[in-house]
Amino acid sequence: MRARDLVADFPTVGLDTPVADAARLLADHDLPGLIVVDEHGLPAGILPGTQVLRLAVPGYCLDDPALARVVDEAHADVFMRSISGRTVREAMPPRPRELPVTDPDATVLELAALMARTHSPLVAVVDAGGLRGAVTLQALVDRLVEQ
Amino acid sequence: MRARDLVADFPTVGLDTPVADAARLLADHDLPGLIVVDEHGLPAGILPGTQVLRLAVPGYCLDDPALARVVDEAHADVFMRSISGRTVREAMPPRPRELPVTDPDATVLELAALMARTHSPLVAVVDAGGLRGAVTLQALVDRLVEQ
Repeated sequence: MRARDLVADFPTVGLDTPVADAARLLADHDLPGLIVVDEHGLPAGILPGTQVLRLAVPGYCLDDPALARVVDEAHADVFMRSISGRTVREAMPPRPRELPVTDPDATVLELAALMARTHSPLVAVVDAGGLRGAVTLQALVDRLVEQ
Repeated sequence: MRARDLVADFPTVGLDTPVADAARLLADHDLPGLIVVDEHGLPAGILPGTQVLRLAVPGYCLDDPALARVVDEAHADVFMRSISGRTVREAMPPRPRELPVTDPDATVLELAALMARTHSPLVAVVDAGGLRGAVTLQALVDRLVEQ
């Protein structure tokens, strides 16, 4: 079994996609993260859901738990105001050593090792024709356990 | 809105739970990770799904993508043999600076900041009576976006 047997369509966002749209995509499709594509449609990075949240939290709350506790009322206002006008580009983590991106020939063990090394719950699958989709942690664990 | 309004029951595993059982739990319930509890039922750590995978991959495949590519046939055998007899204790990451654990009074912003800081898609909620459950990234994003 190879990546081509486990890959599924996966929504993508661009670097200029508003963070609000990215958050809505995560919520609507119960995604563990997003594939961020460049202008050629190739993966520029994988954005874990927790890092979308990072951009949605005002800086003073991120660093100071005591302040975050105080801000309760109108939380949705704070959240939406915080992400207003911000794009995915700003939410991208610093370029990591290794991107969770592979090709359709990747074996199950390669996929598992890649997710483990990059701490990513999804791996983008790319071939000569471009982005084919993603293999998710869930799809991989389901397949490994069912055997 | 506070953690108590978002918390839901969440399965737990112990440090001596076999990794095979933990992997099955992840797969069967589509969980982003597991809460590992100590002998008092309190969170000893949060185990992201990607780190369960780490233990399921033979060491030689984890470090060497070329070897992982070669091992294709009988992948399930390799996987199941690899985790046989291993426990969650061995899958636990080194003690992190901060555990994604909070109390029922945590605000939405506190939860979001905690997930962002710890890169954890779930936060365990504990009160004087013990573990109350978890708030997941999905539950939090759903709530933030719907407003």
